[in-house]
Amino acid sequence: MVVLVINAGSSSLKVDLIDAAAQETLASGQVERVGAVSSLASFRLGEGKPDRVSLSAPDHAVALDVLLGKMREADGPNRDVLPPIEAVGHRVVHGGERFAESALINGEVVDAIRDAFDLAPLHNPANLRGILAAQKTFPDVPQVAVFDTAFHQTIPPHAYLYALPNRLYRRHKIRRYGFHGTSHYYVSRRLYELAELDKTDSRVLTLHLGNGCSACAIRDGRSVDTSMGMTPLEGLVMGTRSGDLDPSIVFDLVDKEEMPLAEVYTLLNRYSGLLGLSGYAADMRDLLAEAADGDVRCQQAIDVFCYRVKSYVGRYLAVLGGLDAVAFTAGIGTFAAPVRAQILDGLEGLGIVLDADANEAASGAEARISTLDSPVQAWVVPTNEELVIALDTMKLAGAAQQTPFV
Amino acid sequence: MVVLVINAGSSSLKVDLIDAAAQETLASGQVERVGAVSSLASFRLGEGKPDRVSLSAPDHAVALDVLLGKMREADGPNRDVLPPIEAVGHRVVHGGERFAESALINGEVVDAIRDAFDLAPLHNPANLRGILAAQKTFPDVPQVAVFDTAFHQTIPPHAYLYALPNRLYRRHKIRRYGFHGTSHYYVSRRLYELAELDKTDSRVLTLHLGNGCSACAIRDGRSVDTSMGMTPLEGLVMGTRSGDLDPSIVFDLVDKEEMPLAEVYTLLNRYSGLLGLSGYAADMRDLLAEAADGDVRCQQAIDVFCYRVKSYVGRYLAVLGGLDAVAFTAGIGTFAAPVRAQILDGLEGLGIVLDADANEAASGAEARISTLDSPVQAWVVPTNEELVIALDTMKLAGAAQQTPFV
Repeated sequence: MVVLVINAGSSSLKVDLIDAAAQETLASGQVERVGAVSSLASFRLGEGKPDRVSLSAPDHAVALDVLLGKMREADGPNRDVLPPIEAVGHRVVHGGERFAESALINGEVVDAIRDAFDLAPLHNPANLRGILAAQKTFPDVPQVAVFDTAFHQTIPPHAYLYALPNRLYRRHKIRRYGFHGTSHYYVSRRLYELAELDKTDSRVLTLHLGNGCSACAIRDGRSVDTSMGMTPLEGLVMGTRSGDLDPSIVFDLVDKEEMPLAEVYTLLNRYSGLLGLSGYAADMRDLLAEAADGDVRCQQAIDVFCYRVKSYVGRYLAVLGGLDAVAFTAGIGTFAAPVRAQILDGLEGLGIVLDADANEAASGAEARISTLDSPVQAWVVPTNEELVIALDTMKLAGAAQQTPFV
Repeated sequence: MVVLVINAGSSSLKVDLIDAAAQETLASGQVERVGAVSSLASFRLGEGKPDRVSLSAPDHAVALDVLLGKMREADGPNRDVLPPIEAVGHRVVHGGERFAESALINGEVVDAIRDAFDLAPLHNPANLRGILAAQKTFPDVPQVAVFDTAFHQTIPPHAYLYALPNRLYRRHKIRRYGFHGTSHYYVSRRLYELAELDKTDSRVLTLHLGNGCSACAIRDGRSVDTSMGMTPLEGLVMGTRSGDLDPSIVFDLVDKEEMPLAEVYTLLNRYSGLLGLSGYAADMRDLLAEAADGDVRCQQAIDVFCYRVKSYVGRYLAVLGGLDAVAFTAGIGTFAAPVRAQILDGLEGLGIVLDADANEAASGAEARISTLDSPVQAWVVPTNEELVIALDTMKLAGAAQQTPFV
């Protein structure tokens, strides 16, 4: 089944055309600055080289139409690469407590996504715009929503409840949800295969370290805790997000910096993390380069980042009562060997023994980075959220198409 | 040396008269509702039974005078129990970055305590009132300040820095300070003796679980991380404080509950924690009783509390790269055997093996609660902050008295 995977942001639209059965990406493209006077698009067919075009995309529906048009145009009249789209899968950030699995989109699902606007005011409205755009362009094609939160719905109450007056959970559903669920799911499944673990009797930890970062403790295939919380702000240090913080600091900033509350929110989400600590860049590659060049503050940002990840490794080691394997994924996790080494440094006594050469060599592809006799295996496992979305979409859309015949 | 130890709160004053050399408490007393129309005082001489009196204490100076007067009166003309006071030691909550050790109080120290008002707006002004009261009552007696933060000044930057724009640390000294330092210090020193550890080559974890709660990772005698942060709000779940929280929740509460920011602060500090989760009580004894009686929400509060402590055990296990011993102290840590058991449950694989009988029997006194072959020792160690204050005071005041003769 050919699935169009859509990831719609507030001013962006990313698509991947995937042959789900073959697990093969046929094409991908994205439009940036949706809603601006002039938008930028880029796309790539098969193994071809990327094309860049500028276009006019006042909204997500037009962006999708025009992007797909440009892609088909480039593909030529013979449709060498791009077959017709049979189903559409959407990344949706927040499924609230309603969705523990992906869902075939109908009116009720759309309502539930709307109900969760409150929980993800930046993301869910954009995701819904993507859904409505696809419904307009492909009115007869089944659509599926795959939620970033769904995998974490197995987290037990003692791990998802904050120590707040319990009416706040009842009234506003204030609790830990966790995000990056599709990534943690994919990476853990690959890890079971690579590390030859029995999913039903395993304790693993997945570290998604990209621009956003989260850790996930997984017991017997199910998420039992994760570092992002009610929002993606909590947990590890990220590119521009602070991660864990004494909540008092919010009040202190309003007071001492005389900042309006909304600006404090922006400061914590967009000017903190690696960017804030280093005063230089949010991108780990830049920090590693500057630190190697002797920049003390960039080194300090790296040190804080690694220390926090290390502490989460310990945290989930205790939560799981032991560990079979740990996996690194996303940009930093997949490519930054020195960061992986610094995170795992000193954890030998806890059973995680890095193979320095293997770690140094691992970059962007699946690789074991622990020694062969390390009690806990460590791996690099590039994530593939789009594939999970395509597979879930194939499963649910396939079942939907068959429904009339049952 | 006979030392008067003073712990002055915003509306309370607690005193202990300690023979520091003999490590013996001669008398203790406290005044509550200082500043109210009528104050309540209680005191106890030696091993005698407690006395209660009501008195008028418009400020801390009067409270101290009247309380000591009542104690001397009860002691009788022969001064059977109460010898003259030779030095005064004060608990001071916040020493900022200025104090890594206790300090003999002079004008400069008073100024530094005042400088830290900003960091501890509730506590330091009250502590200073206690100092000024004692200076008035005992103008010729040396006074010493013992800081709750001092022991944690050895925490390295990668553990004390938040991932915020670095100007916020430079401008406002926003960083992790940690509290309960005097308690973590005392308990770790007792633990070295009890567990027969070499202080200079040891990795221990101290868990101060009382109405306020904090964990401390200690390597070779020095604090290297602790769970309370810039303020005592961060970290473990406490009686009425939330502990760790997605910082976004602060913004959410302002928005969804339409609360003024100051009320959110109060909610997180005074109506959250065990009280908020249970909707019933902040005191673990009450929760254990209700949970045993089948109250689901009280059980849930206990579960969240224990889970968070467990996760900090893991966190500091990773930070230290291994663990020689762990100690429980303060009200919950010393008396609540089921809570200790729940915290350590499942950590056997990490080397902490509880002796269920020994744990059940341990209550209020020093006791080993791990099995004899547990790789990590676990102990109950009642804290004694007043003794540390008295000993530090003796050391510094003794040196001060000798200064003229050197």
